[in-house]
Amino acid sequence: MSLAHTQSRPTAYSCGPAFAASFRAAREDFRDGRDTPSAFLERFLDEIETQEPSLHAFVTLARDEARLAAAQADTRYKAGNPLSAVDGLPIGLKDIIQTEGLPTQSGSPIFTGWQAERDSAVASALRRGGAVLVGKTATTEFAYGAITPTRNPYDHNRTPGTSSSGSAAAVGAGMLPLAIGTQLMSSVLRPASYCGHVGVKPTYGAIRQDGIHPFSPSGEHVGAHAHALEDAWQTLRFLAQEAGPVPGSRGLTGPEDAPAATMPKRLLRMYTPGWELADTSVRDAFETALDTLSNAGVSIVEPSTVPELQAIEDDCARSDWCIAEIAAFEMRWPFFEYEKSGGEFHDRINKLLVRAHEITLEDYHLALEWKDGFRARYLALSEQIDGVIGLTAPEVAPVGLENIGHPIMCSPASCMGAPAITIPALEADGLPLGLQLIGFHNRDAEMFAHTAWVDNALAR
Amino acid sequence: MSLAHTQSRPTAYSCGPAFAASFRAAREDFRDGRDTPSAFLERFLDEIETQEPSLHAFVTLARDEARLAAAQADTRYKAGNPLSAVDGLPIGLKDIIQTEGLPTQSGSPIFTGWQAERDSAVASALRRGGAVLVGKTATTEFAYGAITPTRNPYDHNRTPGTSSSGSAAAVGAGMLPLAIGTQLMSSVLRPASYCGHVGVKPTYGAIRQDGIHPFSPSGEHVGAHAHALEDAWQTLRFLAQEAGPVPGSRGLTGPEDAPAATMPKRLLRMYTPGWELADTSVRDAFETALDTLSNAGVSIVEPSTVPELQAIEDDCARSDWCIAEIAAFEMRWPFFEYEKSGGEFHDRINKLLVRAHEITLEDYHLALEWKDGFRARYLALSEQIDGVIGLTAPEVAPVGLENIGHPIMCSPASCMGAPAITIPALEADGLPLGLQLIGFHNRDAEMFAHTAWVDNALAR
Repeated sequence: MSLAHTQSRPTAYSCGPAFAASFRAAREDFRDGRDTPSAFLERFLDEIETQEPSLHAFVTLARDEARLAAAQADTRYKAGNPLSAVDGLPIGLKDIIQTEGLPTQSGSPIFTGWQAERDSAVASALRRGGAVLVGKTATTEFAYGAITPTRNPYDHNRTPGTSSSGSAAAVGAGMLPLAIGTQLMSSVLRPASYCGHVGVKPTYGAIRQDGIHPFSPSGEHVGAHAHALEDAWQTLRFLAQEAGPVPGSRGLTGPEDAPAATMPKRLLRMYTPGWELADTSVRDAFETALDTLSNAGVSIVEPSTVPELQAIEDDCARSDWCIAEIAAFEMRWPFFEYEKSGGEFHDRINKLLVRAHEITLEDYHLALEWKDGFRARYLALSEQIDGVIGLTAPEVAPVGLENIGHPIMCSPASCMGAPAITIPALEADGLPLGLQLIGFHNRDAEMFAHTAWVDNALAR
Repeated sequence: MSLAHTQSRPTAYSCGPAFAASFRAAREDFRDGRDTPSAFLERFLDEIETQEPSLHAFVTLARDEARLAAAQADTRYKAGNPLSAVDGLPIGLKDIIQTEGLPTQSGSPIFTGWQAERDSAVASALRRGGAVLVGKTATTEFAYGAITPTRNPYDHNRTPGTSSSGSAAAVGAGMLPLAIGTQLMSSVLRPASYCGHVGVKPTYGAIRQDGIHPFSPSGEHVGAHAHALEDAWQTLRFLAQEAGPVPGSRGLTGPEDAPAATMPKRLLRMYTPGWELADTSVRDAFETALDTLSNAGVSIVEPSTVPELQAIEDDCARSDWCIAEIAAFEMRWPFFEYEKSGGEFHDRINKLLVRAHEITLEDYHLALEWKDGFRARYLALSEQIDGVIGLTAPEVAPVGLENIGHPIMCSPASCMGAPAITIPALEADGLPLGLQLIGFHNRDAEMFAHTAWVDNALAR
């Protein structure tokens, strides 16, 4: 990786797979007294000072509160008693995630200045674990509608991706080591691809959503934007333990440290209809990566070789439909309430609201049944393959903030609820391009292990 | 049924299985102009005027708003355009269910006077359908802790049952034809048994819980207290359609009118450890009912006759443990937030909070796995039996408001998420006693059909 930012940034936190610059590594220094959470935080606050005026990644900053929280973490590390794997971690939360003491505006005029009375499950757990909340990051309207003024750190004329725009730009620019986003279709992985960092969406249900503005709760995933794979792992694992899973779900389990790199034997290559949209430079970057992995011993399986693998490709093509259909039914609450009070929305939301007024419980059942079938067809492959490899998006970050790109390569994993990850292992046209791995349900740790191996193989 | 109230009540709404007095029947009169929603409402408001001062079933009454809503329903029926099967239905909502314009206090000092900004999914759907919200009904603290001052309409020295105390007392006293409650262990069915009316808890997930104070969302069910079986059916079906199911769940489906009475061929007799607690009068009432059904052609299956039926009895005995263990994990949000702010709770909640501070994600998994096994073992019986028949509680309403009785006969269906219903078909010691039927998941309509038949058979 040799991508240059349009703004300067600390070299220790490059956008590439800079595992050595992880928060996990910094924690060793906190314990040894070579560094402190406060000093660590200040380096990010400096970046914010420099870059935020042009990037607009944050809607609310909480510098003073963050400094106070970091100072408390200093004391705990000094005493040898850190609270958790996230103690002292400077973090940003997508602004649909409720926080006590800071507004949660959900990118909507309906919530301008609105403040929750209590922390969401995610914010509550993070603060209990000692994480340092630096600010709330820009989100498109209800993570679906009107875009934010946020810029891509690699090129200010390009979108950072949606809907976790601020989380992606803040991490991509090195203003934060980690931020929490959410994904219904592609809202963590695609912006992470555009902004050149790790993005993870765990198995559906891994992390509780209470206190996050609902849009389509059966399809929404809490995920992480990070520089380092191991930080994403540790933070998501911490949240699954402390915020807990979506009630009734199993969550994400595994060791506290990120699982060790393990070679995947067979990976199914994913095309989706997005492949047809990809430019030559994007296709070439992906093909080169596949060649490298193949030469290193990974068997890349073409879907055309086996009917049930090709069937998954057909399923991928219907994922966008399925997610939208389910969302149209589930958004009726609270959006019908907002409509009653005269709320107005971006056209993307209005379009879905039209369907929300038509859709029946029977239509909803049909979409859920299709989704169950997709999931079952995919899970049936777990004996044949170790996971899926594909692009994260058919394009690098498009020019123009209103051009939000295509979700189609991320929606298959979102739809069926499988864990998915993007790493900034590729580039095209001088811009970052994400490589996506999809694992099997509730085997997130295995997906991390495979991804670490793939990342190492491509970095050689 | 020949039970007498300590207070007078309209004979048209007796506590017994008075199907002829249903709201569904009243709607025919609204259409024909023989009655109006306003006149219907006034009869209940009169009962409230008379009985509420001694029963304390409501925490908030909204007479003026209810009269306005009923007048609007009058106009719609007059024009031949009612909005739904609940248009004009006077209704009460348990006070953990958020309502715009009326406080939602959850029986807790933490929420004294608190008012939600918007309707919950349930309240929103009911108002869209034209239901007439008469008031908020008393709930124990967060539907789990401190009791309410509510009295049992059959004997003011007895508990109405918990936690949907106000909903049960209001319906049992004839102050409302229907009220919405919630059930984690026994909170709809047991108070319905004590207060002599129909109580229904549909299959888990049938009705969306958003905007209802969370305690253990994976175990909580929205249910109905009603005079008439057909009103409970129509209202729950309406809610499943309009509020929608818990996201990702299937909800409750079937015809708009209550399913026709159908004889169940084989019913498994349920004992649970509660049977040992039951007095002779209670046991006799149940045995007599079983004899009647048996003589009418229903095969009552003793669990001791088949090992896998006996295994279900063993599962029933562990249901309380499983529900409490899951609740201890899930209550951490928002209760850890309340603790942070210095919130104080009843000892029942404090006791569970102790476990909440100890329990791990692994413990939670163990409880969920046991629950999945129970559900699977029960579903495997669906070829052998048409459902389960048992008492709703081991006792009639106990004397003393603090004596809340035993949940053990209701918790099996709650734990495994199967639909369950209680009808006021029995009596003991001059007090109402509920007969419980448990159906199979997502076959709620069939359970209603069997229950209607059983109710008719016992009324003969």
